[in-house]
Amino acid sequence: MDSLRDCASRQLLDRIGDAWSMLIVTHLRGGPLRFTELARKMEGVTPKMLTQTLRGLERDGLVTRTVHAVVPPRVDYELTPLGHSLEDVVDAITAWADTHIAEVQAARGSYDSKLSTAKNSS
Amino acid sequence: MDSLRDCASRQLLDRIGDAWSMLIVTHLRGGPLRFTELARKMEGVTPKMLTQTLRGLERDGLVTRTVHAVVPPRVDYELTPLGHSLEDVVDAITAWADTHIAEVQAARGSYDSKLSTAKNSS
Repeated sequence: MDSLRDCASRQLLDRIGDAWSMLIVTHLRGGPLRFTELARKMEGVTPKMLTQTLRGLERDGLVTRTVHAVVPPRVDYELTPLGHSLEDVVDAITAWADTHIAEVQAARGSYDSKLSTAKNSS
Repeated sequence: MDSLRDCASRQLLDRIGDAWSMLIVTHLRGGPLRFTELARKMEGVTPKMLTQTLRGLERDGLVTRTVHAVVPPRVDYELTPLGHSLEDVVDAITAWADTHIAEVQAARGSYDSKLSTAKNSS
């Protein structure tokens, strides 16, 4: 990756890397879902954060938003072909995370306790 | 990924997905670098952001920081084995980004122009 491309890719990397975006891609791979269905699957996300993240994914061409003219109106979110192309990447990332989360948590604990020892002795 | 694991992995995904973290992993794969060397390779990063990102990577056990007792002191950053294990994931992400950036930029342009048409006609 050279520096010119770095500049252009960085925003894209931020989108792919965003944890909520990755969870949305994971949950939509089986087919379209309504907003409330997505919200229920993604525990811990606020409606505001979910709306923002979906809008970002829609803008990037990864997700489509379809309003159905029924009463009450139904809104479905669905992966585009470009969105589906992210599945392998999301799988690689979540596999790494699942495999290494214990090591990372151990490293964090050790870093934090060293930091607090250094603070207490100074 | 179930919901309990979602919760624990999310912070980790945010780290892996962070664009600056990915760039640091890319630049350190060839061997250790000094802070100023890293800063020069990563155009556009502020010293503050680079320091923060390196500290996060160190805390997560992905990077080590070594202070050499020379005058002036030299500080090297190097990937740990855990950090090296991220290389394939980072490659998958940057390959996707390189392949699809034009499609994403086209989608963004189309989304933004639809939005401004809607605003102007309302």
